[in-house]
Amino acid sequence: MRKTSKDLREIVMSGGMARVMAAHDPLSAMLVEEAEFDGIWASGFEISAAMGLADVSLVSMTEHLNNMRNMANRTSLPIIADVDTGYGNAINVIYTVREFEAAGAAAVVIEDKMFPKVTSLIDGGRQDLLSIAEFQGKIEAALSARKDPNFLIIARTEALIAGLGEREALERARAYEAAGADMILIHSKQKTPDEIESFINAWDGKARIVIVPTAYPQMTEARARALNKVGVLIYGNHAIRAAVTGMQKIFAQIIQDGGIQNADADIVPVSEIFRLQKMDEVKENEKRFLR
Amino acid sequence: MRKTSKDLREIVMSGGMARVMAAHDPLSAMLVEEAEFDGIWASGFEISAAMGLADVSLVSMTEHLNNMRNMANRTSLPIIADVDTGYGNAINVIYTVREFEAAGAAAVVIEDKMFPKVTSLIDGGRQDLLSIAEFQGKIEAALSARKDPNFLIIARTEALIAGLGEREALERARAYEAAGADMILIHSKQKTPDEIESFINAWDGKARIVIVPTAYPQMTEARARALNKVGVLIYGNHAIRAAVTGMQKIFAQIIQDGGIQNADADIVPVSEIFRLQKMDEVKENEKRFLR
Amino acid sequence: MRKTSKDLREIVMSGGMARVMAAHDPLSAMLVEEAEFDGIWASGFEISAAMGLADVSLVSMTEHLNNMRNMANRTSLPIIADVDTGYGNAINVIYTVREFEAAGAAAVVIEDKMFPKVTSLIDGGRQDLLSIAEFQGKIEAALSARKDPNFLIIARTEALIAGLGEREALERARAYEAAGADMILIHSKQKTPDEIESFINAWDGKARIVIVPTAYPQMTEARARALNKVGVLIYGNHAIRAAVTGMQKIFAQIIQDGGIQNADADIVPVSEIFRLQKMDEVKENEKRFLR
Amino acid sequence: MRKTSKDLREIVMSGGMARVMAAHDPLSAMLVEEAEFDGIWASGFEISAAMGLADVSLVSMTEHLNNMRNMANRTSLPIIADVDTGYGNAINVIYTVREFEAAGAAAVVIEDKMFPKVTSLIDGGRQDLLSIAEFQGKIEAALSARKDPNFLIIARTEALIAGLGEREALERARAYEAAGADMILIHSKQKTPDEIESFINAWDGKARIVIVPTAYPQMTEARARALNKVGVLIYGNHAIRAAVTGMQKIFAQIIQDGGIQNADADIVPVSEIFRLQKMDEVKENEKRFLR
Repeated sequence: MRKTSKDLREIVMSGGMARVMAAHDPLSAMLVEEAEFDGIWASGFEISAAMGLADVSLVSMTEHLNNMRNMANRTSLPIIADVDTGYGNAINVIYTVREFEAAGAAAVVIEDKMFPKVTSLIDGGRQDLLSIAEFQGKIEAALSARKDPNFLIIARTEALIAGLGEREALERARAYEAAGADMILIHSKQKTPDEIESFINAWDGKARIVIVPTAYPQMTEARARALNKVGVLIYGNHAIRAAVTGMQKIFAQIIQDGGIQNADADIVPVSEIFRLQKMDEVKENEKRFLR
Repeated sequence: MRKTSKDLREIVMSGGMARVMAAHDPLSAMLVEEAEFDGIWASGFEISAAMGLADVSLVSMTEHLNNMRNMANRTSLPIIADVDTGYGNAINVIYTVREFEAAGAAAVVIEDKMFPKVTSLIDGGRQDLLSIAEFQGKIEAALSARKDPNFLIIARTEALIAGLGEREALERARAYEAAGADMILIHSKQKTPDEIESFINAWDGKARIVIVPTAYPQMTEARARALNKVGVLIYGNHAIRAAVTGMQKIFAQIIQDGGIQNADADIVPVSEIFRLQKMDEVKENEKRFLR
Repeated sequence: MRKTSKDLREIVMSGGMARVMAAHDPLSAMLVEEAEFDGIWASGFEISAAMGLADVSLVSMTEHLNNMRNMANRTSLPIIADVDTGYGNAINVIYTVREFEAAGAAAVVIEDKMFPKVTSLIDGGRQDLLSIAEFQGKIEAALSARKDPNFLIIARTEALIAGLGEREALERARAYEAAGADMILIHSKQKTPDEIESFINAWDGKARIVIVPTAYPQMTEARARALNKVGVLIYGNHAIRAAVTGMQKIFAQIIQDGGIQNADADIVPVSEIFRLQKMDEVKENEKRFLR
Repeated sequence: MRKTSKDLREIVMSGGMARVMAAHDPLSAMLVEEAEFDGIWASGFEISAAMGLADVSLVSMTEHLNNMRNMANRTSLPIIADVDTGYGNAINVIYTVREFEAAGAAAVVIEDKMFPKVTSLIDGGRQDLLSIAEFQGKIEAALSARKDPNFLIIARTEALIAGLGEREALERARAYEAAGADMILIHSKQKTPDEIESFINAWDGKARIVIVPTAYPQMTEARARALNKVGVLIYGNHAIRAAVTGMQKIFAQIIQDGGIQNADADIVPVSEIFRLQKMDEVKENEKRFLR
């Protein structure tokens, strides 16, 4: 497995909680690292959005994989890859796990929706789940495919998103752990942390929990840590939302001003982009190697 | 050629000035369109930066092309593709023009640097130029390769960037026009518009001029229009700078706050991303076609 | 739509029968054109095989699409793209049709299997079909997505492959025509043409039929034409089988001989590859444009 | 570095001679492995040809790299990647070596031509070489970029191809070894082995030699071994030539016969393609994991 500056499994297994931020391209992944998060979420939602596409299984595995690999080649944080449903059935999952592990991911999250999926937080979206047995087969397939036992297989249940209630969510989580999942991601679109907290308090498995508190921002890191079972907290879409915000503002200002005379005050200078691109390293290598 | 909501050649040839904003992925291109710019600059600098790479001919033609094609498939503005040196010599230029035209670009900008290039605005960068005759050959190759005569071949001279002075810049611009270039892009890294204005005032060709006023922000659209020769004004890197600014701020805030409890106030909601992803169209199509 | 030297719709609609050969990369597509077939089958089976993968929905839409686009850019024959199930549901089909049409395909074949699919000719493969209503929705989605009404939507039923019998096959074919499909592809893995001939003789629709006689080689072009309803005959996998045969032989010979002293007699010379690569055109362009 | 069934460095350094066959896609690479060659040559010439393009630096690094990575993921032989000039200057070489090593190559061959290159065996092709000092810089850049010291940097001199004579070829080979190259590839387009043998006999360095005997087929493996300095013998284009031969023959026959009634006798059956695609493994995994 690719060497990373922080070991995700170590953080999680030692009882810590990794704070993981979404990214949609290598640059945003590099900014996640500079901001000192513990890991990068190669987010299907963000990558779809960056491509101008709805998050409904249109972006292909090839595109997710290439993007994730490029992130891995430019950063040294562990990357959790969002592989949606695994791009099909258990056979697709085997291929997915092999390819993402080889490309440098530290973990994959596979969800129990049917392929093609619909993004979780949309109002009135179809949220059809696989049978428990079928999804267990996918988890077992994933386990059989990984080479490094430290590569994490995270099972994500959409039972709460699908409105099936805590009992179903717990039953699924237990079944997925029994099938060998390293961690359980439980997702909710309630506006408060209650639903998630109730699930976590009721959780009686050994697998640590992953949460994605977009809809319920009162779930702070401190509050999540206090639950004593959360191993990874993912900020799922704040990179793309911040990027859009930044671009919309500056575009509007330039259009309004009829020029960039006021723009520089509000955005980083070109030299900051040069720094991120490691132009210093390029110049140094030119001195060493260009003749 | 792909149908676009505004016709670049028409704006330029009727004496107008198109305002064109940089983009680095389909989403930023869509935001450029929503902001009501007249065109999209598929910027080599921005695309390199988004990939976490220096702008020194590392990003391949394949990657530029795929990105530009995806922009074209999600927007209806004309796209000016930044193809650097054309990825090699005149033979590469032929291939480049064919592929970018087929993929939906409205224009390409080809520059008179040697391959591999170094980004223009960096201090102390190598800025070696081709001979005039060799670059004329590349322009003629480009013209021979386009299918639609409305596809614009824009010749970019880096003579001022390379410190060769206005006389050389004018000589090159005249030679490139003589070779058939539709427009001349003149670039400068002076902190004021003087160098560019002097060049434009001295310009005696018929080809209209393209400028990229990053270093000299006092060159407003009004001032550029007043010169009566500028057909395209490109904002070359403000999208990526704004995106980086937005992400750095929100990442720092989330790290500082230990959560997203204050983040929502500063960034667009998830629903804004859904809107950009056209989730409404997806839902409507689900109603029509899913059974 | 891309201009081609032969118009597929014209051949089909005028009562002719287009002979279409499989290809797996641009070179094999060029050889199909040189051999004077009427069209190219951008075969999912061949492309999967060329990538060393089983034909079970592992190769992504991105990979199929890029390959098909490269074929289209190097040939002037119409290309029928094998898009399997459309890479998911009706929403995926809309995206698929838009992208393949924009990339230069003349037609797509969409099959009524469930995603992920299993290749048709394998013994004992899963062959689960969608409900008729669901597949009709996919056909309607495809029709709504095409821009050029000459772009052909071909509905492929796997009813015979799945062992559901001629009655089911006919019912499906009628339903798919009613939904708007331009042609019906009927597939069989019987060792003789009987099953296919019986179906075609019983077919009472107006849509012309596409067949793929791999398993039943006695179905010659003359015999197919005599049925008066076949508009396209696809040779589905002979390019890859011939390529494998050629390579296995020459590899074995070189290993056995401990050298290439006898190899040249059995394979085309390097100059033949140069010819296919159009090196003459490159040299001529070098003379015109390199200075 | 990726684990392979044979260790290229070990064969070479122990005084053995590895027989390496060209491939242009994962399937041909798998056939190279089955034929029991010692390694795979990810040939720029073959990959260009498979894409229907001239071998003049049109195929991008992205395309070479993806193809090579896919070969690496489907085989267990060491792969020698043909990276032409390294896609530009020393800065490009650094990026190239990092990416190819990460993608699973065992070695890269970098040649001393100017970018963009022209294929070596064409009559009357431009064959401009870099200065020795500039190419030494590229070799040093390559060495600085590799992570695993077992990853081989092979310097290829085109001095004989360019008609500069043995003295220049030897001077270049010595200079490249002095710069740190692990091996020297010497290329010739003479119709007999004389030129190559003379060079090898005159070679006084420690680096072992790589040859590519296409033009001079009398150079058998036995004859090459007898020179006592050849560590790798590459068969540079026989896979694509055999594939073209196979396809041209069968296409012509099918056109002539008006059907495939005689084709099966001359090509492998579909079941052979299934075997290569590992359909057995898929079926077994379906039994284990599909529910």
